[in-house]
Amino acid sequence: MVSLQSRIDSQSEGLVDNEEETITTDPACLFKNDSLDSCGSSSSSCRRRAASIEWPPRKQPRTIETVEVGCLNVISGKYESLDYDIPDSDLLLDEERNSGPKYETKKNISRWVVFSLIGILTAGIGIILDVTIDQLSEIKYGTLKHYVDRCVEDNCLYIPYLMWVAFNVGFVLISSILVTYVEPVASGSGIPQVKCYLNGVKIPRVVRIKTLLVKVVGVIGSVVGGLAVGKEGPMIHSGAVVAAGISQGKSTSFGKDFNILNFFREDHEKRDFVSGGAAAGVAAAFGAPVGGVLFSLEEGTSFWNQSLTWRVFLSAMITTFTLHGILSMYYGYQGKLWYSGLLSFGKFPEVQYYWYELIIYMIMGLVGGLSGSLFNHVNYQLTIFRMRYINNKLWMKVIEAALVAAVTATVGFAMIFYINDCRPLGQDPTKFPIQVFCGDGQYNALGALWFQTPETSVRALFQDPPGSHKVISLSLFFILYYLLSIWTYGLSLSAGLFIPSLLTGAAWGRLTGMGLMWLFPDQAWVDVRKYALVGAAAQLGGVVRMTISLTVILIEATGNISFGLPLMLTLICAKWMGDFFNEGIYDIHIMLSGVPLLPWEPPPLSHDVYASEIMSHPVVVLRSVERVARIVQILSAETHNGFPVVDPGYEYQGDKVACGKLRGLILRHQLIVLLQNKIFNEVTDLWDSRNHEVALKLFRDEYPRYKHIQDISLSSKEMKCTIDLRPFMNSSPYTVIHSMTLPRVFRMFRAMGLRHLPVIDDSNQVVGMVTRKDLVRYRVNHHKGNIREELKISEKF
Amino acid sequence: MVSLQSRIDSQSEGLVDNEEETITTDPACLFKNDSLDSCGSSSSSCRRRAASIEWPPRKQPRTIETVEVGCLNVISGKYESLDYDIPDSDLLLDEERNSGPKYETKKNISRWVVFSLIGILTAGIGIILDVTIDQLSEIKYGTLKHYVDRCVEDNCLYIPYLMWVAFNVGFVLISSILVTYVEPVASGSGIPQVKCYLNGVKIPRVVRIKTLLVKVVGVIGSVVGGLAVGKEGPMIHSGAVVAAGISQGKSTSFGKDFNILNFFREDHEKRDFVSGGAAAGVAAAFGAPVGGVLFSLEEGTSFWNQSLTWRVFLSAMITTFTLHGILSMYYGYQGKLWYSGLLSFGKFPEVQYYWYELIIYMIMGLVGGLSGSLFNHVNYQLTIFRMRYINNKLWMKVIEAALVAAVTATVGFAMIFYINDCRPLGQDPTKFPIQVFCGDGQYNALGALWFQTPETSVRALFQDPPGSHKVISLSLFFILYYLLSIWTYGLSLSAGLFIPSLLTGAAWGRLTGMGLMWLFPDQAWVDVRKYALVGAAAQLGGVVRMTISLTVILIEATGNISFGLPLMLTLICAKWMGDFFNEGIYDIHIMLSGVPLLPWEPPPLSHDVYASEIMSHPVVVLRSVERVARIVQILSAETHNGFPVVDPGYEYQGDKVACGKLRGLILRHQLIVLLQNKIFNEVTDLWDSRNHEVALKLFRDEYPRYKHIQDISLSSKEMKCTIDLRPFMNSSPYTVIHSMTLPRVFRMFRAMGLRHLPVIDDSNQVVGMVTRKDLVRYRVNHHKGNIREELKISEKF
Repeated sequence: MVSLQSRIDSQSEGLVDNEEETITTDPACLFKNDSLDSCGSSSSSCRRRAASIEWPPRKQPRTIETVEVGCLNVISGKYESLDYDIPDSDLLLDEERNSGPKYETKKNISRWVVFSLIGILTAGIGIILDVTIDQLSEIKYGTLKHYVDRCVEDNCLYIPYLMWVAFNVGFVLISSILVTYVEPVASGSGIPQVKCYLNGVKIPRVVRIKTLLVKVVGVIGSVVGGLAVGKEGPMIHSGAVVAAGISQGKSTSFGKDFNILNFFREDHEKRDFVSGGAAAGVAAAFGAPVGGVLFSLEEGTSFWNQSLTWRVFLSAMITTFTLHGILSMYYGYQGKLWYSGLLSFGKFPEVQYYWYELIIYMIMGLVGGLSGSLFNHVNYQLTIFRMRYINNKLWMKVIEAALVAAVTATVGFAMIFYINDCRPLGQDPTKFPIQVFCGDGQYNALGALWFQTPETSVRALFQDPPGSHKVISLSLFFILYYLLSIWTYGLSLSAGLFIPSLLTGAAWGRLTGMGLMWLFPDQAWVDVRKYALVGAAAQLGGVVRMTISLTVILIEATGNISFGLPLMLTLICAKWMGDFFNEGIYDIHIMLSGVPLLPWEPPPLSHDVYASEIMSHPVVVLRSVERVARIVQILSAETHNGFPVVDPGYEYQGDKVACGKLRGLILRHQLIVLLQNKIFNEVTDLWDSRNHEVALKLFRDEYPRYKHIQDISLSSKEMKCTIDLRPFMNSSPYTVIHSMTLPRVFRMFRAMGLRHLPVIDDSNQVVGMVTRKDLVRYRVNHHKGNIREELKISEKF
Repeated sequence: MVSLQSRIDSQSEGLVDNEEETITTDPACLFKNDSLDSCGSSSSSCRRRAASIEWPPRKQPRTIETVEVGCLNVISGKYESLDYDIPDSDLLLDEERNSGPKYETKKNISRWVVFSLIGILTAGIGIILDVTIDQLSEIKYGTLKHYVDRCVEDNCLYIPYLMWVAFNVGFVLISSILVTYVEPVASGSGIPQVKCYLNGVKIPRVVRIKTLLVKVVGVIGSVVGGLAVGKEGPMIHSGAVVAAGISQGKSTSFGKDFNILNFFREDHEKRDFVSGGAAAGVAAAFGAPVGGVLFSLEEGTSFWNQSLTWRVFLSAMITTFTLHGILSMYYGYQGKLWYSGLLSFGKFPEVQYYWYELIIYMIMGLVGGLSGSLFNHVNYQLTIFRMRYINNKLWMKVIEAALVAAVTATVGFAMIFYINDCRPLGQDPTKFPIQVFCGDGQYNALGALWFQTPETSVRALFQDPPGSHKVISLSLFFILYYLLSIWTYGLSLSAGLFIPSLLTGAAWGRLTGMGLMWLFPDQAWVDVRKYALVGAAAQLGGVVRMTISLTVILIEATGNISFGLPLMLTLICAKWMGDFFNEGIYDIHIMLSGVPLLPWEPPPLSHDVYASEIMSHPVVVLRSVERVARIVQILSAETHNGFPVVDPGYEYQGDKVACGKLRGLILRHQLIVLLQNKIFNEVTDLWDSRNHEVALKLFRDEYPRYKHIQDISLSSKEMKCTIDLRPFMNSSPYTVIHSMTLPRVFRMFRAMGLRHLPVIDDSNQVVGMVTRKDLVRYRVNHHKGNIREELKISEKF
């Protein structure tokens, strides 16, 4: 998340306002020295001429408005799209001709191998996380229990309290310092980041190895630090990083290139692998391989594919079984692969329900939606506060995290100290029952909830027999844990949201069940455990608003297919109710950081917006044989990442809107590689010898981190050379005509996974360019009677 | 399936060969009388001019080859695409302007309601099927058992034998006569038809109510008739028909228009509902809601959508629970919704396995792939035989079906009569244990397998305790049932393939298990039931080659998530092995009937094929204000379904390849409606008064069955009128440039669900049109070293 302060600073200058620009710029002088020959940048005289050209003019110039602090309608100009479209270039065509069917087969087999590896390695990370957290928690709670037991008698309870605070703050500091100072993109659950990646937004550094390391160590610190967090979201992010890493056959971080799998070095292939990694992550986190596939589907895919699904499913399956196999060994059930109770919610073998219960579930869903949207609202306000007052000082972020850790320990301690909820020993499966002030042979029920990881507590609330908790203690636990989890989410450390939501939901669900038991005393169908599960689903659904994947994840985690309908009804109601008030928590955070996430559907009622209004213009074009000097100049002066290529004979003219017949599209990074390797007509014989393989290797070696134009030095002699862009450019980009309406442009952009979509006029001349930001601007505000609003784009924030 | 004879007849004339055509036609005379002004139809002189136009010329003229009998490389020209692209027309834009957000909300709520209704009605059909088959089977087998028991003593076993034959032939005749004479599209399992529909191919009459009735009655006849068939495939087809039916708010078959839901009367919306119906069908057939969603996904979707998935899942869930709820009542477990054992395979609660077993499962998968591809190959040869000698006489089809029914009864009777596999009573859960020649207190194990529906037999093989069958009887049963099911699939009756495949597979799987028990006598992990399940999965996977949906269906049907990996490994191996030899059975039958099914991916190594080679040309264009006489002439003379619209001032000229700037695209059925309602500039004031709502209603009332051009009568005065096509046409169709390569054209066509894709040249003039058939022609033959082959298109077959 970026600082809001810098966002506010940049409001006035950052917004794209082409109308203003074109009026104040004198195009004549620009064209004279051949520098920034933006097509369509028209002087006032040519604007009159332009008006006579038949194409719908933009209705109103975009206006600059003051951006409210913390409002959700500013898009950051920083984020770029990934390139999911597979371009047509002579290079690739040549490779195809030379390589033939065997090469295809090799690629295919490599895909299967890589997907299997993704499954195994993701499981490995899951195992490391699980075992480390298990061991460290054992040390922590074992020590604490030891001192609590001793100090109750010696009246020195301040010692275990201070130890608890120290443990928490210590572990949380590790996580927070790592995330804050080493890799900020590893903060939070990671699900928003993976969601953006799969949607096609390039979040810098999101799939790097450093991110993975910070994430894994960080989440261990957060969970062992006793915060209201889980390790599930980070697990999904880790899977994605693993996938992106091993599919490339090299690590730029370690400067190691294994020179294998270089045919996968493109955004499209990488995205496919990341889908598999995310699915494997879900599988590792919840033992839910099908849920994982559906997660990838739900979040990611614009164009789904049978064989891809199949491979994704394979890696999810392999993860599940590797993880279960090895953890079974670790927990002493060697060789029993089918032992699936590890990360799941325990067994619900006899869940039964009747028609009339469905109404209760639906009401619980609505309550979950309310409670979830309240969670989101308060967390949203808190995030605004953080952006304004905390995030601009890095050390303040770390201090806040430490403060939350200390408060969490204090709250836990106070509850154990003040509430006397004693239960007979032997009934609760907790590892560290503490007696505190209870009689002999009894343990403190709240101590049991606090002296274990939140994940274990969820399982306890699902599985503990009826009568394990007092109403008062459970209510207090619910309220305090709810507040703590709101405060915790968004801290600068790596931590997931699933488990705290499930725990809060399970608490109020169990309370509901207890209430129903009191209302209908002798009914067999009233089972607090079942209601704990429904409450957990309702709360989680109300917070994250995921749909089919969440249902399937919960079904798989409970291992009970027949409880699917109740869960689904609950989740539908929670989503409907929650959506009435605000968005899901992940979407709120994504919007607050200004990421241009493309929704599933074009905004309704937008058939009156045309491509000519959507597109950015003027466009900077290149000729298909272009002077090096001009390319360098354009790359230095412009921030664009894609340039339409026009006829070599085209002369840049200032007095026309359309600028040359479209011949292709070339990307900034391609130009960079060409300049860097000096593939100039006058220098190299690459093009003449048709040695395309060499050129392709150059591009692949650099992927995905390209040099900056400033870092390339060229002699003045070289600057006078020319480059033939034709073999490298995408020679037939998808285009749309200026009169196409927004929904059709949107659907094409979304379905084809595009990054640049040139807009052409009636005679195939380039008049503009549509990118992700141009489309995301249009959004419907459901709360203002479905009026369409235009978001603002801030270049610098 | 159409007659092969007619296919062979039409080979020589039917193949599209434009080169030939354009040379023999004299364009001059055509243009003089303004009849068939095909753009791009070039005389030899203008072809020389055309050659100078810069665009890659087609490499070789398509050649006419003799089509081998029964080869898989001919595409029927009969089948059209559905229109999944949502067009931009002034009419729709106007509707949007006038209706506003409330209309959108109404549409949205209607969608949810319709999806719920689809779920309930599909469950209703499932219940009817299940209860009717149950009742009729009870009567049939009860009667037979009675006579068998009596006749063993009285030595009159020919009486039950003849009765058995009579029962079988009688029921099968009902099914076969209905399918053969009333609605041939209801034949087979229905899965290929649904697959084609979701893929975007318009199979005539596939979602009509008549088809549904024939399908339901037919499948009851087939199953009660004792054939080696199941009711699962037809259940899926039924769900699809239900969905298509109720989403339209009218029934053309019954001539009833409820005047509701008319906003759903377009291919795009209807397809979404059919996805839901298919998923509900799977849910009803296997109790597998998630599997159903994945089935729809796997078969259908080019562009998946979160809210659509969610609705599809809802209808699948509702189906599952309505069905289970009501059938629980029927079978005496009232109110217990969670009772899920009805259509599933029974409980596998204690399935456990070890690492090393995975190798056995993989080998079984390979065997299943072999056995499945053998099944497909023999059935393919049989289908060719049928196309050649049987299908041209309707009565012969009926006779063949009756013959199979009689043979099935005979085989069953012979096995019971000759093989003495006696088991003690009380161990087998069959309803009708027959003693035959067994001792008192014993029953004939083969009689138990034959005296029940195949579905019950599958469950029996999965659940019967070890030692329920002799090796010899099970082996014989496997061989004979395998042969019978090959013979049965493709008969002219409605019947599914899942259950016979599962039954055959369960038989050899159980045999494998028995072999393993003999090899490793005292190992706990050897459980014949588990191996029966794996064998069933392997056989089914080898025959149908479905991937992720089948895995999930099997997991859900067994109710055991932890057995997922073994099932998946088995299915992967079966698919790999099977794909080495031939395609899945559904694909073979789809290809034999020449349906142009679009694969998931463009053929590899096809970057050297350009749009200009793929496209059909010359193209017949219309002017945006066109004379009625010309429209009528074109519609009568041409079979095309979409016409590019060019400038109103465009004059048809014979001497150029490109023909006018593209302004839009209009469909045949739109022109028909315009002619039918006489919306001419000189007659109606519709366009002047901008009364678009009326026009839109006209289109929607006619959907989906439009008149033929011959059925529209126009006076000679009316023929002189003109039509303004602009408010009705799609004003900005997606287009591609002639130099785009096949993979990119393919991806766009597939992802956007297009029907017509105009190809333009460098100055936005129409030069050709790409349709589904043009793309399906290119295919890679993996068996000839991945060489690309071009399929032939036969217009008449």
